[in-house]
Amino acid sequence: MLFHVRMDVLIPTTMDPAVVDKLKAEEKAISQKLQQQGKWRHIWRLAGEYSNFSIFDVESNQELHEIMMSLPLYPFMKVEVTPLLRHPSSIREDDS
Amino acid sequence: MLFHVRMDVLIPTTMDPAVVDKLKAEEKAISQKLQQQGKWRHIWRLAGEYSNFSIFDVESNQELHEIMMSLPLYPFMKVEVTPLLRHPSSIREDDS
Amino acid sequence: MLFHVRMDVLIPTTMDPAVVDKLKAEEKAISQKLQQQGKWRHIWRLAGEYSNFSIFDVESNQELHEIMMSLPLYPFMKVEVTPLLRHPSSIREDDS
Amino acid sequence: MLFHVRMDVLIPTTMDPAVVDKLKAEEKAISQKLQQQGKWRHIWRLAGEYSNFSIFDVESNQELHEIMMSLPLYPFMKVEVTPLLRHPSSIREDDS
Amino acid sequence: MLFHVRMDVLIPTTMDPAVVDKLKAEEKAISQKLQQQGKWRHIWRLAGEYSNFSIFDVESNQELHEIMMSLPLYPFMKVEVTPLLRHPSSIREDDS
Amino acid sequence: MLFHVRMDVLIPTTMDPAVVDKLKAEEKAISQKLQQQGKWRHIWRLAGEYSNFSIFDVESNQELHEIMMSLPLYPFMKVEVTPLLRHPSSIREDDS
Amino acid sequence: MLFHVRMDVLIPTTMDPAVVDKLKAEEKAISQKLQQQGKWRHIWRLAGEYSNFSIFDVESNQELHEIMMSLPLYPFMKVEVTPLLRHPSSIREDDS
Amino acid sequence: MLFHVRMDVLIPTTMDPAVVDKLKAEEKAISQKLQQQGKWRHIWRLAGEYSNFSIFDVESNQELHEIMMSLPLYPFMKVEVTPLLRHPSSIREDDS
Amino acid sequence: MLFHVRMDVLIPTTMDPAVVDKLKAEEKAISQKLQQQGKWRHIWRLAGEYSNFSIFDVESNQELHEIMMSLPLYPFMKVEVTPLLRHPSSIREDDS
Amino acid sequence: MLFHVRMDVLIPTTMDPAVVDKLKAEEKAISQKLQQQGKWRHIWRLAGEYSNFSIFDVESNQELHEIMMSLPLYPFMKVEVTPLLRHPSSIREDDS
Repeated sequence: MLFHVRMDVLIPTTMDPAVVDKLKAEEKAISQKLQQQGKWRHIWRLAGEYSNFSIFDVESNQELHEIMMSLPLYPFMKVEVTPLLRHPSSIREDDS
Repeated sequence: MLFHVRMDVLIPTTMDPAVVDKLKAEEKAISQKLQQQGKWRHIWRLAGEYSNFSIFDVESNQELHEIMMSLPLYPFMKVEVTPLLRHPSSIREDDS
Repeated sequence: MLFHVRMDVLIPTTMDPAVVDKLKAEEKAISQKLQQQGKWRHIWRLAGEYSNFSIFDVESNQELHEIMMSLPLYPFMKVEVTPLLRHPSSIREDDS
Repeated sequence: MLFHVRMDVLIPTTMDPAVVDKLKAEEKAISQKLQQQGKWRHIWRLAGEYSNFSIFDVESNQELHEIMMSLPLYPFMKVEVTPLLRHPSSIREDDS
Repeated sequence: MLFHVRMDVLIPTTMDPAVVDKLKAEEKAISQKLQQQGKWRHIWRLAGEYSNFSIFDVESNQELHEIMMSLPLYPFMKVEVTPLLRHPSSIREDDS
Repeated sequence: MLFHVRMDVLIPTTMDPAVVDKLKAEEKAISQKLQQQGKWRHIWRLAGEYSNFSIFDVESNQELHEIMMSLPLYPFMKVEVTPLLRHPSSIREDDS
Repeated sequence: MLFHVRMDVLIPTTMDPAVVDKLKAEEKAISQKLQQQGKWRHIWRLAGEYSNFSIFDVESNQELHEIMMSLPLYPFMKVEVTPLLRHPSSIREDDS
Repeated sequence: MLFHVRMDVLIPTTMDPAVVDKLKAEEKAISQKLQQQGKWRHIWRLAGEYSNFSIFDVESNQELHEIMMSLPLYPFMKVEVTPLLRHPSSIREDDS
Repeated sequence: MLFHVRMDVLIPTTMDPAVVDKLKAEEKAISQKLQQQGKWRHIWRLAGEYSNFSIFDVESNQELHEIMMSLPLYPFMKVEVTPLLRHPSSIREDDS
Repeated sequence: MLFHVRMDVLIPTTMDPAVVDKLKAEEKAISQKLQQQGKWRHIWRLAGEYSNFSIFDVESNQELHEIMMSLPLYPFMKVEVTPLLRHPSSIREDDS
């Protein structure tokens, strides 16, 4: 089941850069593991913004929530979730 | 080059259903042709709304604009365009 | 899987009252059938507004979308969908 | 009498985690006591957000206010209250 | 139990003035009857706008809803309802 | 001359509780004095929010401004002022 | 007593130009009479918009409302009223 | 050439009152000098808010910008600029 | 003197296409004449939208307003005007 | 390929002025280098605001993003990106 998530990351400019770098490295590791598992299907950067549009493929709303809560940068994110489904015009087998 | 487009389709409830059906069939045909050409990469329906999130892969802003203007339902759409790029955490070769 | 849906119904004041009454009766019949099936768990009226908050229990985003599209008043609705999950503080067995 | 309340909890990232944990435990205890009393009818988590939709069944606006003010996390909440009533299409005896 | 209601009345400029006058006269009659019954406690005009702020004193959310639905101008109103209670600083016996 | 004022009080969670209590006590004393003088006609709490709707009866915009500036909690308020007048449907002698 | 009013005039493009011209001429005549009486102190056009910012000097909220309701273009206006007072830094005798 | 400027002044509640008083005194001095020069034509306080509506009469956008940047309270302001022109209905010689 | 103008053109879908084409041709002719005169410095299309960002170089707010009012499509536009000036970092002689 | 970018710079009033000056000087140097390279085509100041409208001419969304991320003031900016294209009415050879 697919979900579209917009994440805007807002890290305070006063935060220790070493802490920020560590959080970002952990975030990247978890994101890539979830991508390899097929749960985090797509992630794109928005040009000029520290934000991403992502597509998740999960079993349930519950699983989506647990994934979001496991992200190290979650406490610094504004998150917007939209449930998706196959579009009747889609020709891609894997977009549902 | 990738673009994220949200389209909200707002067809007046007073419009002739036969005209609406014809427009929708034409829209579907053009959408599928563009998908086959690889220009319209993804299209997903938003649950509960007559809207879609789409990913386009085009040569330029100009080409994106021409595609949008060629859509039969364009006059009834509210459109929101966001330029995208490869995310540094992405592991998919084809998400850029 | 649970979803929260807000529906604001906006029927044009110029519409034929007999048509409106027929649509409302059909809407009520479908709503009650879906409630009996356990798919439309709750529906509450917002005081002073021609709107409702509803809780749906469905298999997937796809099923939610099909239900919404089957509603006779859908063309006159503004709809807002929010995916829900069990709250860790909930004591009700049936709120998940 | 029923009320729909949306609570968005915004705990500062600089707050002492031990204090946060204590507040959350107290919040949960009070929430569950109110659920057992039948005053806090439902509570659901919004997928991907540190927010809930709740349904309260209280004697009056006054009682709803006192409950909200008694919540340990209230100072960190953005709250939106909507008075509800039985929907004419509802088939549930206990949704009014 | 008190409620604050903002009503913005939006009558189409194309509507027959005789119909408008009849609706307004009916609205006034019902409003004054409800004021005499003590249910519609206050009504004030907003300077420069075709809008009012009103205070209702009713038994329940249900009664407030029924009153609003009985207003002849309701189909032309945008309505915003806010539940109120006695303020701890109030010295008026009758503001609760 | 009547004015409707919405006050949302936003006291920082890091403020010394003793200072907050003192400010609140001073605010209450001034509010009650102004109520006794008939200048602060009504004050109601919004259910679930640390906000009030108030009705002031003053000589001029100038006097309203001076009253607002004299409130100890003013520096922590978001304020929204709406000038009011007697509604043509009102039956209360004292609502103008 | 001074009020700042923003008026956005929204005349339907389908309206008979002769009717529009007549309304505009009547509006201008009434505006100039009120300016001569000193009640409509200032009126400025917003560059590029069919809107104005005006300053009224009236006895009361009631008088402001009556003036606004007497304007022939009022049914086509979006109006925003802000009560003003003398600014402590002002050096103009007549800006209060 | 005329400009309408709304200034909302947002001084942090934690700022040293002596510093605030000094800034306000400097602001007042500069404002009055600009008023005497005819560049700051009008300034009015908004009732109940720490905000003003001002009218500037300057040679160019450039001069308006330089004036705004010279204000001691500018770093604490939210500013909204609207270019104005003579209204065709205006009877005042000096409102253009 | 420079101004940035955003124009969103909203032509009703029910309008006669021949009338629309004539309006668009007239708009184009006037736009190009103003560009040749150096008054309409730049015009760019927004990708995917029937909107433009334009830069005007005019003598005054008055001249900008007269230009906008002379546009055949003006009655169908939503317009947003922003006064500009030379940026201190600009290296272009002609961007002021 | 052209992009329109609005940048609103929000430097905290508590920041060390020497650090701010250094950041601004670095920002200016990078901006002018990019202008000389033809990548940052235009930059204009918004009158009365610490903001700019800029036009970039880049190879791709990717290049635009890298430029934005390289700006020393980026962490203090609110950024809004709009992809542009040649307008059919434009007579300038270099506005595409």
